[in-house]
Amino acid sequence: MDIHKRIERGLEKAIAFATATGQPPKLMAALRYSVFPGGARVRPRLCLAVAGACGDPNPAATDAAAAAIELLHCASLVHDDLPCFDNAALRRGKPATHVVHGEPLSLLTGDALIVLAFETLARECALNPMLLAPLTATIARAVGSPHGIVAGQAWESEDDIPLGDYHRAKTTALFTGATAAGAIAANADPQPWMQVGEALGAAYQTADDLRDIAAEEAEIGKPCGQDMANGRPNAALADGVSGTVMKLQGLVQCAVEAVPVCPGSDDLKLLILGEAKRLVPKNLAHVVAA
Amino acid sequence: MDIHKRIERGLEKAIAFATATGQPPKLMAALRYSVFPGGARVRPRLCLAVAGACGDPNPAATDAAAAAIELLHCASLVHDDLPCFDNAALRRGKPATHVVHGEPLSLLTGDALIVLAFETLARECALNPMLLAPLTATIARAVGSPHGIVAGQAWESEDDIPLGDYHRAKTTALFTGATAAGAIAANADPQPWMQVGEALGAAYQTADDLRDIAAEEAEIGKPCGQDMANGRPNAALADGVSGTVMKLQGLVQCAVEAVPVCPGSDDLKLLILGEAKRLVPKNLAHVVAA
Repeated sequence: MDIHKRIERGLEKAIAFATATGQPPKLMAALRYSVFPGGARVRPRLCLAVAGACGDPNPAATDAAAAAIELLHCASLVHDDLPCFDNAALRRGKPATHVVHGEPLSLLTGDALIVLAFETLARECALNPMLLAPLTATIARAVGSPHGIVAGQAWESEDDIPLGDYHRAKTTALFTGATAAGAIAANADPQPWMQVGEALGAAYQTADDLRDIAAEEAEIGKPCGQDMANGRPNAALADGVSGTVMKLQGLVQCAVEAVPVCPGSDDLKLLILGEAKRLVPKNLAHVVAA
Repeated sequence: MDIHKRIERGLEKAIAFATATGQPPKLMAALRYSVFPGGARVRPRLCLAVAGACGDPNPAATDAAAAAIELLHCASLVHDDLPCFDNAALRRGKPATHVVHGEPLSLLTGDALIVLAFETLARECALNPMLLAPLTATIARAVGSPHGIVAGQAWESEDDIPLGDYHRAKTTALFTGATAAGAIAANADPQPWMQVGEALGAAYQTADDLRDIAAEEAEIGKPCGQDMANGRPNAALADGVSGTVMKLQGLVQCAVEAVPVCPGSDDLKLLILGEAKRLVPKNLAHVVAA
Protein backbone atom coordinates (compact mmCIF):
# COMPACT_ATOMS: atom_id res chain seq x y z
CA MET A 1 0.00 0.00 0.00
CA ASP A 2 1.40 3.43 -0.84
CA ILE A 3 2.29 5.88 1.89
CA HIS A 4 -0.62 8.21 1.18
CA LYS A 5 -3.20 5.42 1.51
CA ARG A 6 -1.60 4.13 4.70
CA ILE A 7 -1.80 7.57 6.30
CA GLU A 8 -5.43 8.22 5.33
CA ARG A 9 -6.44 4.72 6.43
CA GLY A 10 -4.76 5.22 9.81
CA LEU A 11 -6.47 8.56 10.31
CA GLU A 12 -9.84 7.19 9.19
CA LYS A 13 -9.54 4.38 11.72
CA ALA A 14 -8.63 6.77 14.55
CA ILE A 15 -11.44 9.18 13.72
CA ALA A 16 -13.92 6.30 13.43
CA PHE A 17 -13.21 5.41 17.08
CA ALA A 18 -13.64 9.02 18.18
CA THR A 19 -16.90 9.55 16.32
CA ALA A 20 -18.74 6.41 17.37
CA THR A 21 -22.48 6.39 17.86
CA GLY A 22 -23.61 8.34 20.85
CA GLN A 23 -21.29 11.26 20.31
CA PRO A 24 -22.63 14.81 20.15
CA PRO A 25 -23.15 15.21 16.37
CA LYS A 26 -21.65 18.68 16.02
CA LEU A 27 -18.36 17.61 17.63
CA MET A 28 -18.31 14.59 15.33
CA ALA A 29 -18.63 16.87 12.29
CA ALA A 30 -15.98 19.29 13.55
CA LEU A 31 -13.52 16.47 14.24
CA ARG A 32 -13.88 15.08 10.74
CA TYR A 33 -13.71 18.57 9.19
CA SER A 34 -10.43 19.28 10.97
CA VAL A 35 -8.67 16.14 9.76
CA PHE A 36 -10.11 15.54 6.24
CA PRO A 37 -9.17 16.39 3.58
CA GLY A 38 -5.64 16.87 4.81
CA GLY A 39 -2.79 19.08 3.70
CA ALA A 40 0.44 17.55 2.45
CA ARG A 41 0.62 15.20 5.50
CA VAL A 42 4.33 16.04 5.58
CA ARG A 43 4.99 14.83 9.14
CA PRO A 44 3.32 11.40 8.97
CA ARG A 45 4.93 10.83 5.56
CA LEU A 46 8.29 11.56 7.13
CA CYS A 47 7.56 9.12 9.96
CA LEU A 48 6.56 6.37 7.52
CA ALA A 49 9.55 7.08 5.26
CA VAL A 50 12.02 6.73 8.13
CA ALA A 51 10.38 3.53 9.37
CA GLY A 52 10.38 2.24 5.79
CA ALA A 53 14.07 3.02 5.35
CA CYS A 54 14.71 0.93 8.49
CA GLY A 55 12.72 -2.05 7.18
CA ASP A 56 9.39 -1.23 8.91
CA PRO A 57 9.14 -4.44 10.93
CA ASN A 58 6.16 -3.23 13.02
CA PRO A 59 3.82 -1.55 10.53
CA ALA A 60 0.91 -1.23 12.98
CA ALA A 61 3.07 0.75 15.39
CA THR A 62 4.40 2.87 12.52
CA ASP A 63 0.89 3.64 11.30
CA ALA A 64 -0.21 4.53 14.82
CA ALA A 65 2.75 6.87 15.29
CA ALA A 66 2.08 8.54 11.94
CA ALA A 67 -1.62 8.96 12.75
CA ALA A 68 -0.88 10.33 16.23
CA ILE A 69 1.57 12.85 14.81
CA GLU A 70 -0.90 14.09 12.17
CA LEU A 71 -3.79 14.26 14.69
CA LEU A 72 -1.63 16.41 16.96
CA HIS A 73 -0.61 18.59 14.03
CA CYS A 74 -4.30 19.05 13.08
CA ALA A 75 -5.10 19.92 16.72
CA SER A 76 -2.39 22.58 16.72
CA LEU A 77 -3.75 24.09 13.50
CA VAL A 78 -7.31 24.24 14.84
CA HIS A 79 -6.22 25.95 18.06
CA ASP A 80 -3.66 28.18 16.31
CA ASP A 81 -6.35 29.53 13.95
CA LEU A 82 -8.68 30.57 16.81
CA PRO A 83 -9.46 34.27 17.29
CA CYS A 84 -7.29 34.51 20.43
CA PHE A 85 -4.23 33.42 18.38
CA ASP A 86 -3.94 34.02 14.63
CA ASN A 87 -7.66 34.58 14.00
CA ALA A 88 -7.08 32.95 10.62
CA ALA A 89 -10.13 32.43 8.42
CA LEU A 90 -8.60 30.05 5.89
CA ARG A 91 -6.77 26.73 6.34
CA ARG A 92 -5.89 24.07 3.78
CA GLY A 93 -7.84 26.01 1.18
CA LYS A 94 -11.13 25.99 3.08
CA PRO A 95 -12.62 28.02 5.94
CA ALA A 96 -10.86 27.37 9.26
CA THR A 97 -12.65 25.04 11.72
CA HIS A 98 -13.79 27.86 14.01
CA VAL A 99 -15.29 29.77 11.06
CA VAL A 100 -17.53 26.80 10.21
CA HIS A 101 -18.06 25.12 13.61
CA GLY A 102 -17.63 28.02 16.04
CA GLU A 103 -15.12 28.65 18.80
CA PRO A 104 -16.38 26.29 21.53
CA LEU A 105 -16.47 23.23 19.27
CA SER A 106 -13.11 24.13 17.72
CA LEU A 107 -11.50 24.31 21.12
CA LEU A 108 -13.03 20.94 22.03
CA THR A 109 -12.00 19.48 18.67
CA GLY A 110 -8.38 20.32 19.40
CA ASP A 111 -8.66 18.77 22.85
CA ALA A 112 -10.31 15.64 21.46
CA LEU A 113 -7.62 15.25 18.79
CA ILE A 114 -4.83 15.47 21.38
CA VAL A 115 -6.46 12.77 23.50
CA LEU A 116 -7.19 10.68 20.41
CA ALA A 117 -3.54 10.77 19.35
CA PHE A 118 -2.36 9.10 22.56
CA GLU A 119 -5.38 6.77 22.63
CA THR A 120 -4.56 5.63 19.10
CA LEU A 121 -0.98 4.85 20.06
CA ALA A 122 -2.15 2.81 23.05
CA ARG A 123 -4.70 0.88 21.03
CA GLU A 124 -2.54 0.12 18.01
CA CYS A 125 0.62 -0.89 19.89
CA ALA A 126 -1.06 -3.99 21.30
CA LEU A 127 1.24 -6.25 19.28
CA ASN A 128 4.33 -4.31 20.40
CA PRO A 129 3.58 -3.05 23.91
CA MET A 130 7.25 -2.28 24.60
CA LEU A 131 7.14 0.39 21.89
CA LEU A 132 4.31 2.30 23.54
CA ALA A 133 6.29 4.12 26.25
CA PRO A 134 9.09 5.40 23.99
CA LEU A 135 6.63 6.38 21.22
CA THR A 136 4.36 8.20 23.67
CA ALA A 137 7.28 9.97 25.33
CA THR A 138 8.84 10.98 22.00
CA ILE A 139 5.62 12.30 20.49
CA ALA A 140 4.53 14.04 23.71
CA ARG A 141 7.88 15.80 23.93
CA ALA A 142 7.37 17.10 20.40
CA VAL A 143 4.01 18.71 21.11
CA GLY A 144 3.91 19.57 24.81
CA SER A 145 5.79 21.70 27.28
CA PRO A 146 8.65 22.69 27.73
CA HIS A 147 9.95 22.17 24.18
CA GLY A 148 7.09 21.17 21.86
CA ILE A 149 4.43 22.93 19.79
CA VAL A 150 2.51 24.23 22.81
CA ALA A 151 5.64 25.90 24.16
CA GLY A 152 6.38 27.29 20.69
CA GLN A 153 2.97 28.88 20.50
CA ALA A 154 3.38 30.19 24.06
CA TRP A 155 6.54 32.06 23.05
CA GLU A 156 4.21 34.34 21.06
CA SER A 157 2.87 35.64 24.39
CA GLU A 158 6.33 36.71 25.61
CA ASP A 159 7.72 40.21 25.18
CA ASP A 160 11.11 38.95 23.97
CA ILE A 161 10.87 36.01 21.61
CA PRO A 162 14.09 34.01 21.19
CA LEU A 163 13.77 33.17 17.49
CA GLY A 164 15.69 29.88 17.69
CA ASP A 165 13.74 28.50 20.66
CA TYR A 166 10.47 29.68 19.16
CA HIS A 167 10.95 27.97 15.78
CA ARG A 168 12.54 24.88 17.30
CA ALA A 169 9.52 24.35 19.53
CA LYS A 170 6.76 25.47 17.19
CA THR A 171 7.89 23.68 14.02
CA THR A 172 11.09 21.67 14.29
CA ALA A 173 10.05 19.65 17.35
CA LEU A 174 7.33 17.71 15.51
CA PHE A 175 9.65 16.95 12.59
CA THR A 176 12.22 15.63 15.06
CA GLY A 177 9.42 13.69 16.75
CA ALA A 178 8.30 12.26 13.40
CA THR A 179 11.73 10.93 12.44
CA ALA A 180 12.43 9.65 15.96
CA ALA A 181 9.03 7.94 16.16
CA GLY A 182 9.55 6.32 12.76
CA ALA A 183 12.88 4.96 13.95
CA ILE A 184 11.48 3.73 17.28
CA ALA A 185 8.57 1.99 15.54
CA ALA A 186 11.16 0.19 13.39
CA ASN A 187 13.30 -0.89 16.39
CA ALA A 188 16.06 1.52 15.32
CA ASP A 189 18.03 3.97 17.47
CA PRO A 190 16.13 7.28 17.25
CA GLN A 191 19.14 9.45 18.12
CA PRO A 192 20.76 9.87 14.67
CA TRP A 193 17.32 10.23 13.07
CA MET A 194 16.58 13.20 15.29
CA GLN A 195 19.29 15.16 13.47
CA VAL A 196 17.56 14.43 10.17
CA GLY A 197 14.28 15.66 11.62
CA GLU A 198 15.88 18.73 13.09
CA ALA A 199 17.41 19.80 9.78
CA LEU A 200 14.18 19.08 7.89
CA GLY A 201 12.10 20.93 10.48
CA ALA A 202 14.35 23.96 10.25
CA ALA A 203 14.14 23.75 6.43
CA TYR A 204 10.36 23.56 6.60
CA GLN A 205 10.19 26.54 8.97
CA THR A 206 12.46 28.51 6.66
CA ALA A 207 10.26 27.57 3.70
CA ASP A 208 7.17 28.57 5.68
CA ASP A 209 8.68 31.98 6.37
CA LEU A 210 9.47 32.32 2.65
CA ARG A 211 5.97 31.29 1.63
CA ASP A 212 4.44 33.68 4.11
CA ILE A 213 6.11 36.64 2.44
CA ALA A 214 6.42 35.44 -1.17
CA ALA A 215 3.79 32.85 -2.12
CA GLU A 216 0.23 33.22 -3.36
CA GLU A 217 -2.69 32.32 -1.08
CA ALA A 218 -3.99 29.80 -3.65
CA GLU A 219 -0.68 27.92 -3.58
CA ILE A 220 -0.49 27.41 0.20
CA GLY A 221 -4.19 27.26 1.11
CA LYS A 222 -3.97 29.91 3.82
CA PRO A 223 -3.51 33.68 3.90
CA CYS A 224 -0.03 35.10 3.29
CA GLY A 225 1.58 37.95 5.19
CA GLN A 226 0.40 36.57 8.55
CA ASP A 227 3.74 36.97 10.31
CA MET A 228 3.95 40.67 9.61
CA ALA A 229 0.25 41.10 10.41
CA ASN A 230 0.68 39.33 13.76
CA GLY A 231 4.07 40.89 14.58
CA ARG A 232 5.75 37.49 14.57
CA PRO A 233 9.41 36.91 13.74
CA ASN A 234 10.07 35.76 10.16
CA ALA A 235 13.54 34.77 8.94
CA ALA A 236 12.82 35.74 5.34
CA LEU A 237 11.74 39.21 6.43
CA ALA A 238 14.94 39.55 8.45
CA ASP A 239 17.48 37.97 6.05
CA GLY A 240 15.98 38.69 2.63
CA VAL A 241 14.61 36.24 0.06
CA SER A 242 17.76 35.02 -1.70
CA GLY A 243 19.71 34.54 1.54
CA THR A 244 16.79 32.60 2.94
CA VAL A 245 16.57 30.34 -0.12
CA MET A 246 20.28 29.54 0.27
CA LYS A 247 19.78 28.77 3.96
CA LEU A 248 16.93 26.44 3.04
CA GLN A 249 19.08 24.55 0.55
CA GLY A 250 21.85 24.20 3.12
CA LEU A 251 19.43 22.73 5.65
CA VAL A 252 18.12 20.17 3.16
CA GLN A 253 21.72 19.16 2.42
CA CYS A 254 22.34 18.75 6.18
CA ALA A 255 19.27 16.50 6.44
CA VAL A 256 20.46 14.31 3.58
CA GLU A 257 23.95 13.98 5.07
CA ALA A 258 22.53 13.09 8.48
CA VAL A 259 20.61 10.05 7.18
CA PRO A 260 22.25 7.08 8.94
CA VAL A 261 23.24 3.92 7.12
CA CYS A 262 20.16 1.69 6.84
CA PRO A 263 18.58 -0.61 4.24
CA GLY A 264 16.70 2.22 2.51
CA SER A 265 19.01 5.18 3.07
CA ASP A 266 19.63 5.92 -0.64
CA ASP A 267 15.92 5.98 -1.49
CA LEU A 268 15.23 8.18 1.51
CA LYS A 269 17.89 10.70 0.47
CA LEU A 270 16.33 10.95 -3.00
CA LEU A 271 12.90 11.37 -1.41
CA ILE A 272 14.14 14.23 0.78
CA LEU A 273 15.71 16.03 -2.18
CA GLY A 274 12.51 15.56 -4.23
CA GLU A 275 10.27 16.84 -1.43
CA ALA A 276 12.55 19.81 -0.82
CA LYS A 277 11.81 21.18 -4.28
CA ARG A 278 8.18 21.57 -3.31
CA LEU A 279 9.13 23.71 -0.32
CA VAL A 280 10.12 26.75 -2.37
CA PRO A 281 7.20 28.89 -3.56
CA LYS A 282 6.69 28.58 -7.33
CA ASN A 283 7.36 32.25 -7.92
CA LEU A 284 10.80 31.88 -6.34
CA ALA A 285 11.90 28.96 -8.52
CA HIS A 286 14.19 31.33 -10.44
CA VAL A 287 16.11 32.11 -7.22
CA VAL A 288 16.82 28.39 -6.72
CA ALA A 289 17.73 27.92 -10.41
CA ALA A 290 20.22 30.76 -10.07
CA MET B 1 2.89 8.48 53.02
CA ASP B 2 -0.69 9.72 53.23
CA ILE B 3 -2.85 9.98 50.13
CA HIS B 4 -2.80 13.76 50.01
CA LYS B 5 1.01 13.92 50.05
CA ARG B 6 1.29 11.21 47.40
CA ILE B 7 -1.00 13.14 45.08
CA GLU B 8 0.74 16.48 45.50
CA ARG B 9 4.15 14.86 45.10
CA GLY B 10 3.04 13.15 41.86
CA LEU B 11 1.66 16.40 40.49
CA GLU B 12 4.78 18.34 41.53
CA LYS B 13 6.96 15.83 39.72
CA ALA B 14 4.87 16.01 36.54
CA ILE B 15 4.78 19.81 36.54
CA ALA B 16 8.53 19.95 37.20
CA PHE B 17 9.11 18.07 33.93
CA ALA B 18 6.78 20.39 32.01
CA THR B 19 8.29 23.57 33.39
CA ALA B 20 11.97 22.78 32.88
CA THR B 21 14.47 25.50 32.03
CA GLY B 22 14.02 26.92 28.57
CA GLN B 23 10.25 27.08 28.70
CA PRO B 24 8.42 30.34 27.94
CA PRO B 25 8.07 31.78 31.48
CA LYS B 26 4.44 32.88 31.21
CA LEU B 27 3.29 29.40 30.20
CA MET B 28 5.29 27.99 33.11
CA ALA B 29 3.48 30.30 35.53
CA ALA B 30 0.07 29.52 34.04
CA LEU B 31 0.67 25.77 34.24
CA ARG B 32 1.58 25.94 37.88
CA TYR B 33 -1.30 28.31 38.65
CA SER B 34 -3.80 25.88 37.11
CA VAL B 35 -2.69 22.88 39.15
CA PHE B 36 -1.67 24.35 42.55
CA PRO B 37 -3.18 24.76 45.04
CA GLY B 38 -5.71 22.13 44.09
CA GLY B 39 -9.32 21.57 44.97
CA ALA B 40 -10.40 18.46 46.86
CA ARG B 41 -8.43 16.22 44.42
CA VAL B 42 -11.45 13.91 44.54
CA ARG B 43 -10.62 11.89 41.41
CA PRO B 44 -6.96 11.06 42.17
CA ARG B 45 -7.92 10.24 45.77
CA LEU B 46 -10.49 7.81 44.43
CA CYS B 47 -7.89 6.25 42.13
CA LEU B 48 -5.42 5.82 45.01
CA ALA B 49 -8.12 4.51 47.34
CA VAL B 50 -9.17 1.80 44.88
CA ALA B 51 -5.55 0.78 44.21
CA GLY B 52 -4.95 0.77 47.97
CA ALA B 53 -7.97 -1.44 48.61
CA CYS B 54 -6.49 -3.90 46.08
CA GLY B 55 -3.07 -3.94 47.80
CA ASP B 56 -1.37 -1.31 45.60
CA PRO B 57 1.44 -3.56 44.31
CA ASN B 58 2.66 -1.00 41.72
CA PRO B 59 2.65 2.33 43.53
CA ALA B 60 4.57 4.21 40.78
CA ALA B 61 1.91 3.27 38.23
CA THR B 62 -0.85 4.20 40.69
CA ASP B 63 0.72 7.59 41.35
CA ALA B 64 1.12 8.20 37.61
CA ALA B 65 -2.52 7.32 36.94
CA ALA B 66 -3.68 9.59 39.76
CA ALA B 67 -1.53 12.47 38.51
CA ALA B 68 -2.68 12.00 34.91
CA ILE B 69 -6.32 12.02 36.00
CA GLU B 70 -5.92 15.22 38.02
CA LEU B 71 -3.91 16.96 35.26
CA LEU B 72 -6.71 16.17 32.81
CA HIS B 73 -9.31 17.39 35.28
CA CYS B 74 -7.37 20.66 35.72
CA ALA B 75 -7.14 21.02 31.92
CA SER B 76 -10.90 20.61 31.61
CA LEU B 77 -11.48 23.28 34.28
CA VAL B 78 -9.15 25.78 32.59
CA HIS B 79 -10.82 25.30 29.20
CA ASP B 80 -14.34 25.14 30.67
CA ASP B 81 -13.86 28.50 32.41
CA LEU B 82 -12.85 30.29 29.16
CA PRO B 83 -15.09 33.06 27.82
CA CYS B 84 -16.37 30.88 24.93
CA PHE B 85 -17.72 28.35 27.47
CA ASP B 86 -18.73 29.31 31.01
CA ASN B 87 -16.82 32.60 31.12
CA ALA B 88 -16.30 31.89 34.82
CA ALA B 89 -14.17 34.36 36.77
CA LEU B 90 -13.63 32.26 39.89
CA ARG B 91 -12.26 28.74 40.36
CA ARG B 92 -11.08 26.99 43.50
CA GLY B 93 -11.54 30.22 45.41
CA LYS B 94 -9.19 32.28 43.25
CA PRO B 95 -9.45 34.04 39.87
CA ALA B 96 -9.77 31.59 36.96
CA THR B 97 -6.61 30.97 34.91
CA HIS B 98 -7.76 33.08 31.96
CA VAL B 99 -8.52 36.03 34.25
CA VAL B 100 -4.92 36.06 35.49
CA HIS B 101 -2.97 34.69 32.51
CA GLY B 102 -5.18 35.64 29.56
CA GLU B 103 -7.02 33.54 26.99
CA PRO B 104 -4.15 32.42 24.72
CA LEU B 105 -2.02 31.09 27.58
CA SER B 106 -5.02 29.44 29.22
CA LEU B 107 -5.86 27.59 26.04
CA LEU B 108 -2.22 26.47 25.74
CA THR B 109 -2.14 25.53 29.43
CA GLY B 110 -5.05 23.15 28.91
CA ASP B 111 -3.35 21.64 25.87
CA ALA B 112 -0.05 21.26 27.72
CA LEU B 113 -1.77 19.57 30.68
CA ILE B 114 -3.49 17.04 28.40
CA VAL B 115 -0.17 16.14 26.76
CA LEU B 116 1.56 16.06 30.14
CA ALA B 117 -0.98 13.59 31.51
CA PHE B 118 -0.15 10.98 28.88
CA GLU B 119 3.56 11.79 29.01
CA THR B 120 3.53 11.24 32.79
CA LEU B 121 1.90 7.84 32.38
CA ALA B 122 4.51 6.82 29.80
CA ARG B 123 7.41 7.99 31.95
CA GLU B 124 6.28 6.54 35.25
CA CYS B 125 5.18 3.13 33.99
CA ALA B 126 8.76 2.17 33.12
CA LEU B 127 8.75 -0.53 35.81
CA ASN B 128 5.42 -1.91 34.60
CA PRO B 129 5.29 -1.32 30.84
CA MET B 130 2.41 -3.76 30.38
CA LEU B 131 0.19 -1.44 32.42
CA LEU B 132 0.74 1.53 30.11
CA ALA B 133 -1.63 0.58 27.27
CA PRO B 134 -4.65 -0.26 29.49
CA LEU B 135 -4.07 2.81 31.71
CA THR B 136 -3.72 5.12 28.70
CA ALA B 137 -6.79 3.64 27.00
CA THR B 138 -8.90 3.81 30.16
CA ILE B 139 -7.95 7.38 31.01
CA ALA B 140 -8.23 8.58 27.39
CA ARG B 141 -11.73 7.09 27.15
CA ALA B 142 -12.73 9.05 30.25
CA VAL B 143 -11.68 12.42 28.86
CA GLY B 144 -11.90 12.24 25.07
CA SER B 145 -14.46 11.62 22.41
CA PRO B 146 -17.02 9.98 22.04
CA HIS B 147 -17.84 9.43 25.74
CA GLY B 148 -15.45 11.47 27.91
CA ILE B 149 -15.27 15.01 29.26
CA VAL B 150 -14.71 16.62 25.85
CA ALA B 151 -17.86 14.99 24.50
CA GLY B 152 -19.72 16.04 27.63
CA GLN B 153 -18.74 19.65 27.13
CA ALA B 154 -19.64 19.38 23.43
CA TRP B 155 -23.20 18.36 24.33
CA GLU B 156 -23.61 21.95 25.55
CA SER B 157 -23.40 23.06 21.89
CA GLU B 158 -26.31 20.85 20.84
CA ASP B 159 -29.92 22.06 20.64
CA ASP B 160 -31.28 18.99 22.41
CA ILE B 161 -29.14 17.86 25.33
CA PRO B 162 -29.76 14.27 26.50
CA LEU B 163 -29.30 14.80 30.24
CA GLY B 164 -28.05 11.28 30.96
CA ASP B 165 -25.44 11.25 28.17
CA TYR B 166 -24.35 14.77 29.05
CA HIS B 167 -23.72 14.10 32.72
CA ARG B 168 -22.27 10.67 32.11
CA ALA B 169 -19.67 12.12 29.73
CA LYS B 170 -18.98 15.40 31.48
CA THR B 171 -18.69 14.13 35.07
CA THR B 172 -19.21 10.41 35.57
CA ALA B 173 -16.69 9.27 32.93
CA LEU B 174 -13.65 10.53 34.84
CA PHE B 175 -14.88 8.95 38.10
CA THR B 176 -15.30 5.65 36.26
CA GLY B 177 -11.87 6.20 34.74
CA ALA B 178 -10.39 6.89 38.18
CA THR B 179 -11.71 3.68 39.76
CA ALA B 180 -10.84 1.59 36.69
CA ALA B 181 -7.33 3.05 36.52
CA GLY B 182 -6.78 2.41 40.23
CA ALA B 183 -7.80 -1.22 39.72
CA ILE B 184 -5.62 -1.64 36.60
CA ALA B 185 -2.60 -0.14 38.37
CA ALA B 186 -3.13 -2.76 41.12
CA ASN B 187 -3.41 -5.68 38.65
CA ALA B 188 -7.12 -6.05 39.46
CA ASP B 189 -10.03 -6.48 37.05
CA PRO B 190 -11.32 -2.95 36.35
CA GLN B 191 -14.83 -4.04 35.33
CA PRO B 192 -16.55 -4.27 38.77
CA TRP B 193 -14.75 -1.11 39.89
CA MET B 194 -16.27 0.82 37.01
CA GLN B 195 -19.69 0.37 38.62
CA VAL B 196 -18.35 1.94 41.81
CA GLY B 197 -17.00 4.87 39.79
CA GLU B 198 -20.23 5.24 37.88
CA ALA B 199 -22.35 5.47 41.01
CA LEU B 200 -19.91 7.87 42.67
CA GLY B 201 -19.70 10.02 39.54
CA ALA B 202 -23.46 10.23 39.34
CA ALA B 203 -23.56 11.08 43.07
CA TYR B 204 -20.97 13.80 42.56
CA GLN B 205 -22.86 15.26 39.60
CA THR B 206 -26.06 15.25 41.64
CA ALA B 207 -24.23 16.96 44.51
CA ASP B 208 -22.79 19.50 42.06
CA ASP B 209 -26.27 20.32 40.82
CA LEU B 210 -27.42 20.72 44.42
CA ARG B 211 -24.49 22.95 45.30
CA ASP B 212 -25.03 25.07 42.23
CA ILE B 213 -28.53 25.98 43.37
CA ALA B 214 -28.20 25.80 47.16
CA ALA B 215 -24.63 26.38 48.40
CA GLU B 216 -22.73 29.57 49.16
CA GLU B 217 -19.93 30.72 46.84
CA ALA B 218 -17.45 30.72 49.74
CA GLU B 219 -18.16 27.03 50.42
CA ILE B 220 -17.50 25.77 46.89
CA GLY B 221 -14.91 28.26 45.64
CA LYS B 222 -16.78 29.14 42.47
CA PRO B 223 -19.91 31.12 41.62
CA CYS B 224 -23.32 29.52 42.27
CA GLY B 225 -26.32 29.65 39.97
CA GLN B 226 -24.18 28.95 36.87
CA ASP B 227 -26.46 26.30 35.42
CA MET B 228 -29.49 28.57 35.34
CA ALA B 229 -27.35 31.48 34.09
CA ASN B 230 -25.93 29.33 31.25
CA GLY B 231 -29.21 27.55 30.47
CA ARG B 232 -27.73 24.18 31.37
CA PRO B 233 -29.75 21.23 32.67
CA ASN B 234 -29.66 20.79 36.46
CA ALA B 235 -31.28 17.81 38.20
CA ALA B 236 -31.90 19.74 41.42
CA LEU B 237 -33.74 22.45 39.51
CA ALA B 238 -35.86 19.80 37.79
CA ASP B 239 -36.54 17.43 40.72
CA GLY B 240 -36.47 19.73 43.75
CA VAL B 241 -33.98 19.82 46.62
CA SER B 242 -35.26 17.06 48.90
CA GLY B 243 -35.86 14.58 46.07
CA THR B 244 -32.33 15.30 44.82
CA VAL B 245 -30.80 14.74 48.26
CA MET B 246 -32.56 11.36 48.44
CA LYS B 247 -31.27 10.44 44.98
CA LEU B 248 -27.75 11.38 46.08
CA GLN B 249 -27.97 9.12 49.12
CA GLY B 250 -29.24 6.24 46.97
CA LEU B 251 -26.30 6.63 44.58
CA VAL B 252 -23.78 6.59 47.44
CA GLN B 253 -25.42 3.39 48.71
CA CYS B 254 -25.12 1.85 45.23
CA ALA B 255 -21.42 2.72 45.16
CA VAL B 256 -20.83 1.10 48.54
CA GLU B 257 -22.68 -2.05 47.51
CA ALA B 258 -20.75 -2.28 44.25
CA VAL B 259 -17.34 -2.42 45.98
CA PRO B 260 -15.98 -5.87 45.08
CA VAL B 261 -14.41 -8.19 47.64
CA CYS B 262 -10.77 -7.18 48.08
CA PRO B 263 -8.27 -6.85 50.96
CA GLY B 264 -9.36 -3.29 51.81
CA SER B 265 -13.04 -3.34 50.87
CA ASP B 266 -14.37 -2.55 54.37
CA ASP B 267 -12.10 0.48 54.80
CA LEU B 268 -13.01 1.71 51.34
CA LYS B 269 -16.73 1.49 52.08
CA LEU B 270 -16.26 3.56 55.23
CA LEU B 271 -14.21 6.07 53.26
CA ILE B 272 -16.93 6.44 50.64
CA LEU B 273 -19.61 7.00 53.29
CA GLY B 274 -17.41 9.56 55.03
CA GLU B 275 -16.64 11.44 51.83
CA ALA B 276 -20.31 11.42 50.81
CA LYS B 277 -21.21 13.55 53.82
CA ARG B 278 -19.07 16.33 52.43
CA LEU B 279 -21.02 16.31 49.16
CA VAL B 280 -24.16 17.86 50.60
CA PRO B 281 -24.03 21.66 50.99
CA LYS B 282 -23.84 22.66 54.67
CA ASN B 283 -27.12 24.55 54.54
CA LEU B 284 -28.90 21.38 53.42
CA ALA B 285 -27.66 19.22 56.29
CA HIS B 286 -31.11 19.39 57.86
CA VAL B 287 -32.63 17.75 54.75
CA VAL B 288 -30.25 14.80 55.15
CA ALA B 289 -30.88 14.60 58.92
CA ALA B 290 -34.61 14.45 58.23
